[in-house]
Amino acid sequence: MSNNNNIIIDENRISRCGFPEIIYAAGKSSVDLVCATEKLLLNKINVLATRIKKEHWKSLNEKFPDAICDRVARTMTIMRFPVKKVSGSLLIISAGTSDSMVAKEAANSAKFFGVQTDIIADVGVAGIHRLLSRTDSLERASVIIVVAGMEGALPSVVGGLVSVPVIAVPTSVGYGASFNGLSALLGMLNSCASGLTVTNIDNGFGAACAAFRILNSVSKKD
Amino acid sequence: MSNNNNIIIDENRISRCGFPEIIYAAGKSSVDLVCATEKLLLNKINVLATRIKKEHWKSLNEKFPDAICDRVARTMTIMRFPVKKVSGSLLIISAGTSDSMVAKEAANSAKFFGVQTDIIADVGVAGIHRLLSRTDSLERASVIIVVAGMEGALPSVVGGLVSVPVIAVPTSVGYGASFNGLSALLGMLNSCASGLTVTNIDNGFGAACAAFRILNSVSKKD
Amino acid sequence: MSNNNNIIIDENRISRCGFPEIIYAAGKSSVDLVCATEKLLLNKINVLATRIKKEHWKSLNEKFPDAICDRVARTMTIMRFPVKKVSGSLLIISAGTSDSMVAKEAANSAKFFGVQTDIIADVGVAGIHRLLSRTDSLERASVIIVVAGMEGALPSVVGGLVSVPVIAVPTSVGYGASFNGLSALLGMLNSCASGLTVTNIDNGFGAACAAFRILNSVSKKD
Amino acid sequence: MSNNNNIIIDENRISRCGFPEIIYAAGKSSVDLVCATEKLLLNKINVLATRIKKEHWKSLNEKFPDAICDRVARTMTIMRFPVKKVSGSLLIISAGTSDSMVAKEAANSAKFFGVQTDIIADVGVAGIHRLLSRTDSLERASVIIVVAGMEGALPSVVGGLVSVPVIAVPTSVGYGASFNGLSALLGMLNSCASGLTVTNIDNGFGAACAAFRILNSVSKKD
Amino acid sequence: MSNNNNIIIDENRISRCGFPEIIYAAGKSSVDLVCATEKLLLNKINVLATRIKKEHWKSLNEKFPDAICDRVARTMTIMRFPVKKVSGSLLIISAGTSDSMVAKEAANSAKFFGVQTDIIADVGVAGIHRLLSRTDSLERASVIIVVAGMEGALPSVVGGLVSVPVIAVPTSVGYGASFNGLSALLGMLNSCASGLTVTNIDNGFGAACAAFRILNSVSKKD
Amino acid sequence: MSNNNNIIIDENRISRCGFPEIIYAAGKSSVDLVCATEKLLLNKINVLATRIKKEHWKSLNEKFPDAICDRVARTMTIMRFPVKKVSGSLLIISAGTSDSMVAKEAANSAKFFGVQTDIIADVGVAGIHRLLSRTDSLERASVIIVVAGMEGALPSVVGGLVSVPVIAVPTSVGYGASFNGLSALLGMLNSCASGLTVTNIDNGFGAACAAFRILNSVSKKD
Amino acid sequence: MSNNNNIIIDENRISRCGFPEIIYAAGKSSVDLVCATEKLLLNKINVLATRIKKEHWKSLNEKFPDAICDRVARTMTIMRFPVKKVSGSLLIISAGTSDSMVAKEAANSAKFFGVQTDIIADVGVAGIHRLLSRTDSLERASVIIVVAGMEGALPSVVGGLVSVPVIAVPTSVGYGASFNGLSALLGMLNSCASGLTVTNIDNGFGAACAAFRILNSVSKKD
Amino acid sequence: MSNNNNIIIDENRISRCGFPEIIYAAGKSSVDLVCATEKLLLNKINVLATRIKKEHWKSLNEKFPDAICDRVARTMTIMRFPVKKVSGSLLIISAGTSDSMVAKEAANSAKFFGVQTDIIADVGVAGIHRLLSRTDSLERASVIIVVAGMEGALPSVVGGLVSVPVIAVPTSVGYGASFNGLSALLGMLNSCASGLTVTNIDNGFGAACAAFRILNSVSKKD
Repeated sequence: MSNNNNIIIDENRISRCGFPEIIYAAGKSSVDLVCATEKLLLNKINVLATRIKKEHWKSLNEKFPDAICDRVARTMTIMRFPVKKVSGSLLIISAGTSDSMVAKEAANSAKFFGVQTDIIADVGVAGIHRLLSRTDSLERASVIIVVAGMEGALPSVVGGLVSVPVIAVPTSVGYGASFNGLSALLGMLNSCASGLTVTNIDNGFGAACAAFRILNSVSKKD
Repeated sequence: MSNNNNIIIDENRISRCGFPEIIYAAGKSSVDLVCATEKLLLNKINVLATRIKKEHWKSLNEKFPDAICDRVARTMTIMRFPVKKVSGSLLIISAGTSDSMVAKEAANSAKFFGVQTDIIADVGVAGIHRLLSRTDSLERASVIIVVAGMEGALPSVVGGLVSVPVIAVPTSVGYGASFNGLSALLGMLNSCASGLTVTNIDNGFGAACAAFRILNSVSKKD
Repeated sequence: MSNNNNIIIDENRISRCGFPEIIYAAGKSSVDLVCATEKLLLNKINVLATRIKKEHWKSLNEKFPDAICDRVARTMTIMRFPVKKVSGSLLIISAGTSDSMVAKEAANSAKFFGVQTDIIADVGVAGIHRLLSRTDSLERASVIIVVAGMEGALPSVVGGLVSVPVIAVPTSVGYGASFNGLSALLGMLNSCASGLTVTNIDNGFGAACAAFRILNSVSKKD
Repeated sequence: MSNNNNIIIDENRISRCGFPEIIYAAGKSSVDLVCATEKLLLNKINVLATRIKKEHWKSLNEKFPDAICDRVARTMTIMRFPVKKVSGSLLIISAGTSDSMVAKEAANSAKFFGVQTDIIADVGVAGIHRLLSRTDSLERASVIIVVAGMEGALPSVVGGLVSVPVIAVPTSVGYGASFNGLSALLGMLNSCASGLTVTNIDNGFGAACAAFRILNSVSKKD
Repeated sequence: MSNNNNIIIDENRISRCGFPEIIYAAGKSSVDLVCATEKLLLNKINVLATRIKKEHWKSLNEKFPDAICDRVARTMTIMRFPVKKVSGSLLIISAGTSDSMVAKEAANSAKFFGVQTDIIADVGVAGIHRLLSRTDSLERASVIIVVAGMEGALPSVVGGLVSVPVIAVPTSVGYGASFNGLSALLGMLNSCASGLTVTNIDNGFGAACAAFRILNSVSKKD
Repeated sequence: MSNNNNIIIDENRISRCGFPEIIYAAGKSSVDLVCATEKLLLNKINVLATRIKKEHWKSLNEKFPDAICDRVARTMTIMRFPVKKVSGSLLIISAGTSDSMVAKEAANSAKFFGVQTDIIADVGVAGIHRLLSRTDSLERASVIIVVAGMEGALPSVVGGLVSVPVIAVPTSVGYGASFNGLSALLGMLNSCASGLTVTNIDNGFGAACAAFRILNSVSKKD
Repeated sequence: MSNNNNIIIDENRISRCGFPEIIYAAGKSSVDLVCATEKLLLNKINVLATRIKKEHWKSLNEKFPDAICDRVARTMTIMRFPVKKVSGSLLIISAGTSDSMVAKEAANSAKFFGVQTDIIADVGVAGIHRLLSRTDSLERASVIIVVAGMEGALPSVVGGLVSVPVIAVPTSVGYGASFNGLSALLGMLNSCASGLTVTNIDNGFGAACAAFRILNSVSKKD
Repeated sequence: MSNNNNIIIDENRISRCGFPEIIYAAGKSSVDLVCATEKLLLNKINVLATRIKKEHWKSLNEKFPDAICDRVARTMTIMRFPVKKVSGSLLIISAGTSDSMVAKEAANSAKFFGVQTDIIADVGVAGIHRLLSRTDSLERASVIIVVAGMEGALPSVVGGLVSVPVIAVPTSVGYGASFNGLSALLGMLNSCASGLTVTNIDNGFGAACAAFRILNSVSKKD
């Protein structure tokens, strides 16, 4: 709906917040998207666009042959400039197969920021043994993002198993009384595991930013 | 607030629904309560009152020396007439120490109906090993009631471990975004474990009735 | 939206929970669906898919000539392997003509699990005599599922007429202040009939699972 | 909280709307209440106050020995001037014993307006035979008010049995997911019985006014 | 969504409730609609269908040349059999131009039941003089239906001007914080005018039924 | 609950925002209140405290004999220093007698800021003639604040009668489906009268600030 | 959905409220829109239509060559008659690029009313320096409209920087827990900056009307 | 309400999650509290109790002379055993004076875990210069907790100024449309500043745990 062809690049963001401006594609036309991408590249900033849609793909690929569009994650990335690797590693765990869309948005975003990232998918709490058989992976991670829809219970279980930071991402997966992710959101906010924090519904990108803030502040210390 | 001193006994309920009329004490005066209790005893019906308050205790104990008031469960029972034991056994599992009030209401109600009942308390999902160390108990039960507040995740885990009927009871335990039990209720309704069913918030009595309906229909078959 | 072509079969579910893995088709592509179906068949597991859409039919029928697609219930079943019949019978009662979609999802799911199932349709509470003329059917059932939208009152009436387990399924049928099934859901959670339990909105499959859990635990006892 | 000692009598209301000004006592002090009562009596208007509290009783009874305070209905009436009887009769039906507070507010208000009023109490839908045994009373009424909390299902059943106007009054009776009467309100708004109308939660007085509007317009016709 | 080709006619409804069965077209296919219409005509019952859609028109008009489809009201009527006129008259008042869809559904429904009906449109409270210039029409009516979206204030003003029954119909007209009619619904339920009653959002048909119940009970008295 | 004895005076607020810091007494102890008052007086700033409670009165009056506590408005004012009169006048209109608490908070706040203020009370929309008989007062005002609870309809009517700014203040007056002022808030946000603006529920003080911002910017122009 | 071809012009609105009738295009057909436009022009009233859609453009431009359709703001204006300029100036500030749709609706509406209007776009609170670098513009404005979605925090910051009236417009920009603008709406209603007022979600037109009411009343004073 | 005198110490929590079991005092009696404290001390675990009430103080101080009760923070701490200091520092920023209760709970909890902690209080966004004058403190912190009620805007501003992890804690401070913290919670979840994470309403303790998880994982790396 928006058609802002005069997008202003917040050039200082990287120095202030540690990560560059990215493009939130929802509500933007293909023309907007191409234009914003060009501006970032001209400023020698790698490009990450989230929430891209099918109708964006063609324009982006024609204009930027090195653009990588991930259809599940709905992300587009163009990596032309070097990225500083941050130390530590991120583990992303998702509860159901339908949650993988958000998990992959988080993974692609984290990788864009230079974070080493692994995913464990489809380990919902109704088959708790699947999670418990992976405790070694959990213990190796520096930060964990847990993505879950429906009752949103997985972060509570993970939070009780590890001492590292756990970021919970509710998804809109579900129907009826899930109320588009409200059930998962409330579940995570009320977790009986201490020290979880929560992002907006389906906000895989935000969770990756939060993970980057944590790992980046550690990296700076090194 | 109500002061109905002319409570009518629904004498046919036991033949229709399998369980007798019980007294819901919330909003009833001590006089109401004593009166209703007398009528039931006159009809040779054992008495169960739920949601009794501190101010009810004295009147009840003075009038009915054999009345047993459980201050945690907020129940009062008078057992003067024989009760048919139903076959099978009920297991009640509660997540946090504050959920035990509802768990005990369920337990006392189930025992009143002649159901053999055990309780496992304080096995929240943030310490999942506590639940997993009790799988033998889970497997022995004919029906399981799971009581949890906050994120209400425990029934999902239990439902994935057993094949028997699982009745989930959300509680109003929590604060802030628990919205008086709404978070637990929504979590349970959206469980990723198939075949759970849910009662109203804090409705331990209702869960016991549902368990009794299940076990009683089995008993009749015997 | 999801396109998981690497679906993992939870092979132990049948031994743990008594029923096999089924496919929830919402958000899955036809390719996903065909792939998951093949994996289940390879593992010698009969296939039930719920929430299938019109666009799924062609692919499924081409690939699996013995697939039965029920357009009202939105289910697909392939029965190649023997199913153990469970003892007892299930009665499904629906309130309005529009509720039959959910009632049939429940019926097809229950039959898939080996449960003998009957349906009484269109017996809403505004014409209570239609229900009361069927009391003999009600009394014969081992478990009853009651499906209703709008005010969701039918389970309360049924619950007051029988002693067997009653599972209430709210539907999203209605408009305006029905808020997509919220009114029916709240009505059922607050039923004045004791011992009802409730599933998520439109969750006919879940109700069938709950009925199977009850009848299966009885069957095992036999 | 309000202490308006300068209440203005809307003297024309009776000619405009057919019924006189009444006093809504919630939030008024005893002094306010006595003052408003005096003004109405000075204007030769009978007095009805609703939602009076225990602390109001003493002042009212001291000042107005002919004041009748109904502790259940929370109403106070002083009838010093003749009231025109309206033709036809009102039947008030309530679902549970706790709903009788609202039913009696409606009854006292209707009687104050000159309406002949009967009450059938405690005929909830979980014991539908109790209602059905009273169909002769239902058929004799000119207007029916149905008062119910919890799932609020009773008006749907009544609406399907009679052809006269049915006014549904949801009450705040219930707990947990009743959300202080929201469940009953939504249930009644979504009734499958055609032509029901609904008042605010606990608004017995408003239902009586609506019944009076109906009967009064009939009476004027005579 | 429903495709019930075996619709059962509730033949006794007219004797029980005073009005015949009508067809709620939402979620019905054209085939369903034609089939139900035929059954009613075979039973010598006039046909009213509400919530018909554009895609229904062609089939209905082809099959039933005397069918009248009102595109604004979304109703279809076939009047082949005599209708008893009820005494008294109905006035329908709507607040904004967008509310006329619901007002016309109410008008067509009322006329179908034999009620003499007038409409005053577009008299919202922000131009209160438009309503006040019509007070003579208001005073002549036996029953008034007031249809309003957005803040839903019009019924309060009308209710303060007349003594006859006033039925308030909230509409989903509005945007943002109107929450699809919730604002109008809550406004009407909380009206400061005594004795209003309310229907579901957009339920013009229901309001007409309620008006018919009132006028019909008066007519029977005559 | 707060006991901050080290309240910091934002001395620049008056130059930035045009009005001085005031004290929001809710949640403050009497000691807090006395302390904050002293600091403001030391800085030669007149004192306005809103939401004071009964338990605050004694301490305030003992310490500051010139403090004026308005028990209805729940405000305390100490006027020791000259106040610049702003040009123009404010009219505050309230719908019901219970809304006057908020109306008086607005009036006292406006007067504290040097605004000439009049009140018209008790002119609810159900007796619309009471408002219409005061149109001359409406036309004389420079700004109008309209205070209403329940359905919150009064601002719409006023907004359609005048061309000056209209600030709508919803109140928590009501019960049941008023949901503590939500119904009035939504009604005002969805007003069919163009150009109304709305404050938080019960925020009489905020409305007075908004009126002051308007009149003050006019005064500066003079 | 509405197709009112008999739109009545409220000719007195301009004298009562200071601004002429405008056309709210949502739910109107192109024919409706053309018809209403013609009537206004015949009455020598300039035309502003808001919420026009793509499908309206062609008809409008064919019929009225001087119609200006703003695709971002979704407004259409035809200025054939002189407009009185009001004194003072309006500043519109928007938080994110997606909020500009609403900001431009406000700007076009204000200009239509003869208000001199400037826009500062894309100054969200997460980059607060962008706003602070524009304080001179803020100080020059007579009235400020602040448009923001998501957390809706910008009006609080602006309100703390200026003494002139600030009108906050929440937008539906956001996803997940923004609940279509509810988060921004609640944020603005609860602002810690005193004297803000709020409009409905996405109501840029309403904010312009409110600004015009303020500036017009000042102008009249001149 | 709970009276569990048999509290079980989860002794392994410290090795699993990095922090010991603490006591949530809400709903616990003084006897419960003393008993739980004794058990922890016997296990050589320092004691932190949150949400203690006035009625708990006397018992705790009598029994444990070295218990420190913070009346604002509502915490009790007994530090008898050495605590490992974690590297890095935590900054807690609160928006209003009433938010300090939650900020102090966070501070006391963080100190209990060995985290060096500073507080900046009363820097709400309506006086943004107060925050901006403290940017040096912001830049020195390793992790920042931002506590705010009402519109909850402060975390967005802080998140835009720093690159370290920011944990947002909504508080229930506010009234009316703050809905007990819902407005602040939604505001924070929808922040336009990337990478914020959010806790439950008023959950200062949880935020401290999250900060500890971050700093502790850094410390372990050292």
